[in-house]
Amino acid sequence: MEDIAKRYPEALHFHKGGKIEVKARRSLETERELSLAYTPGVAVPVEVIRKDPLKAFEYTSKGHLVAVISNGTACLGLGNVGALACKPVMEGKAVLFKKFANIDAFDIEVNEKDPDKFVEIVKAIAPTFGGINLEDIRAPECFRIEERLKAELDIPVMHDDQHGTALISAAALINAVELTNKKMENLKVVVIGAGAAATSCTRIYKSLGVQEVVMFDSRGVIHNGRDDLNEIKKEFAIDTHYKSYKEALKGADVLLGLSKADLIDGDDIMEMNVHPMVFAMSNPVPEIMPEVAKVARPDVLMATGRSDYPNQINNVLGFPYIFKGALRVRASCINEPMKLAAAYALAELARKEVPHELSVAYGRKLVFGEEYLIPSAFDPRLNEFVSIAVAKAAVESQVSRLPL
Amino acid sequence: MEDIAKRYPEALHFHKGGKIEVKARRSLETERELSLAYTPGVAVPVEVIRKDPLKAFEYTSKGHLVAVISNGTACLGLGNVGALACKPVMEGKAVLFKKFANIDAFDIEVNEKDPDKFVEIVKAIAPTFGGINLEDIRAPECFRIEERLKAELDIPVMHDDQHGTALISAAALINAVELTNKKMENLKVVVIGAGAAATSCTRIYKSLGVQEVVMFDSRGVIHNGRDDLNEIKKEFAIDTHYKSYKEALKGADVLLGLSKADLIDGDDIMEMNVHPMVFAMSNPVPEIMPEVAKVARPDVLMATGRSDYPNQINNVLGFPYIFKGALRVRASCINEPMKLAAAYALAELARKEVPHELSVAYGRKLVFGEEYLIPSAFDPRLNEFVSIAVAKAAVESQVSRLPL
Repeated sequence: MEDIAKRYPEALHFHKGGKIEVKARRSLETERELSLAYTPGVAVPVEVIRKDPLKAFEYTSKGHLVAVISNGTACLGLGNVGALACKPVMEGKAVLFKKFANIDAFDIEVNEKDPDKFVEIVKAIAPTFGGINLEDIRAPECFRIEERLKAELDIPVMHDDQHGTALISAAALINAVELTNKKMENLKVVVIGAGAAATSCTRIYKSLGVQEVVMFDSRGVIHNGRDDLNEIKKEFAIDTHYKSYKEALKGADVLLGLSKADLIDGDDIMEMNVHPMVFAMSNPVPEIMPEVAKVARPDVLMATGRSDYPNQINNVLGFPYIFKGALRVRASCINEPMKLAAAYALAELARKEVPHELSVAYGRKLVFGEEYLIPSAFDPRLNEFVSIAVAKAAVESQVSRLPL
Repeated sequence: MEDIAKRYPEALHFHKGGKIEVKARRSLETERELSLAYTPGVAVPVEVIRKDPLKAFEYTSKGHLVAVISNGTACLGLGNVGALACKPVMEGKAVLFKKFANIDAFDIEVNEKDPDKFVEIVKAIAPTFGGINLEDIRAPECFRIEERLKAELDIPVMHDDQHGTALISAAALINAVELTNKKMENLKVVVIGAGAAATSCTRIYKSLGVQEVVMFDSRGVIHNGRDDLNEIKKEFAIDTHYKSYKEALKGADVLLGLSKADLIDGDDIMEMNVHPMVFAMSNPVPEIMPEVAKVARPDVLMATGRSDYPNQINNVLGFPYIFKGALRVRASCINEPMKLAAAYALAELARKEVPHELSVAYGRKLVFGEEYLIPSAFDPRLNEFVSIAVAKAAVESQVSRLPL
């Protein structure tokens, strides 16, 4: 934390007055315009929506409005900072929606830790929004919260900490497999960490065809003999003889790290399979730094959460376009086909020729390969490319309420 | 309703896509700016707020952000339309905050009718906001809701339907008394209607010095012998021989109507005292039309809720500046001295010379008098004049957390 304050000495000044404002989308200069925006003219859309609730997407901001909701129980790497203190983060997320996908997003900080009470609060305010991005809610509560809200609301709900990282690292995995001529069904994957993101990553990798996964939590390998596993972890329990991840990494193709800084050293990855894929996503310091991995294994394909190394698994590649795609066809949810469609679209875009301006901005020639497994967050084609893929998947999986 | 749709044929088109958008207050062009707005730089204000919660007013949008919250149970004159259908109204209210006081306001529609559950929901999301404008919540639930939220939150809370009309009509009353050389303590006031606005008006009139009030609900005069009165109405019960408002209006100085269209005719006001003050605020059609009142009593001082007659009791004269004043000094509430300060400031501004441009815009010379008891909603001086008066009252009544 002191380190961050030193690296960003202007951070407080930057936040003076907060990061969001609410503006009118209509001119309100004349008395006539005011009579339309408020009483009496506003009664017309009220009556239309009363008769046909779906019209709210058309005649209010609901159709392009996402809530970024947190209770601050797992705020960044800072832990349970509470509802109020997580507000700068949620405002930040809201403005990312606007910048990258021109989606209006508004942060709501909920002072409630009990998952069921939290669900009731979010359900009650849900008419306001067209979609709900849950954020920075600690495990295991986040699982129940997301599950219930998805089941009980008819608008898209996604806990980005779980699914964002999952689908972006899935895009990286798709392209890493492509580059190395491996096959998903033959990969041996070692997952270190068993929190919200780790379990979601593992699920999406399995949807991509991965069959062999060994997962570790802080107590060791997650196996069928353990009696201390919650429902979520049970899903990933296997019969195994591995005692440690060091042992499991022998011959592994993929190391997925969602645990803590500097957990892994060069020796640990030395005996991985040819072209090891190391996705070390602990933030801000990864499980193993790319330069250390590279020395141990020059054939490594590496991704981290950091913007100062290639292949940043950055959630901003996902959430703006997933919600945009969902809202575009008024999807009633964000389902697995939509998330997979986003992952495949990201992977496909990385394989296309990169716009020259982007290479200039990065100061190096960006070209699909081990240092460009996923697109730059600043690729201007993301907005259309990914959101349309998501919208299409919504239509095809029959959760849309508008045609594409 | 059909009438409104005819008068505003463009109303639906005007509402296409809704009326609000959420924008970034900061440039987010460079990678550095993104690292400040979100992770990792955002951790700095998070830690500052975690240590000192009041810093949230400084380093988030909380300090200039008001929630416009409704459950849609008493939406305009349309009744209980529900949470979703009231959204256009709340968005409209939100943009009025922005236009008139440059306060950011965001609408929240709450799908909950039970007053105590509603309170818990609003309390839970309150960390998000610097103030809460409750709107269009039916009586008697609105009383308990506002009372509990005021007691249990440390940010300004106001149910505008109650207090907005009250304080603006109070400004009109102050100036009507001034013009007619009457005295508050000698006025006889007849109130027709006993809902949220009527009871709040009566309370503020009493704060101004009014002593004699006779109130009527749909069952007749509110007197001590009735056993069907709720707690709120009991406050206004008197010993009286009046059987009807027609009878009570004889010799009355003030008729305050908050009931229904065309309830009163010329005969009813014929025997009111000299210079009768008729505030007929039923919307959109008043209890008695100004031209009808004028024929019966040429010496009438008339106010309505309509923009097409002089002296519009328009809430927009109040709420933007009350919240702005409260936020300016980080008041922990909106108390009676602050509301009275707003009423006196409005009355004072109406007595000042009106800017020439305003008269031009209205097509008639605007000058303090029976047709200009309260300022035009478009008077550009309102923003500073009223909000500073409110802020001053907050400081003087010791509910502020910043100096003026």
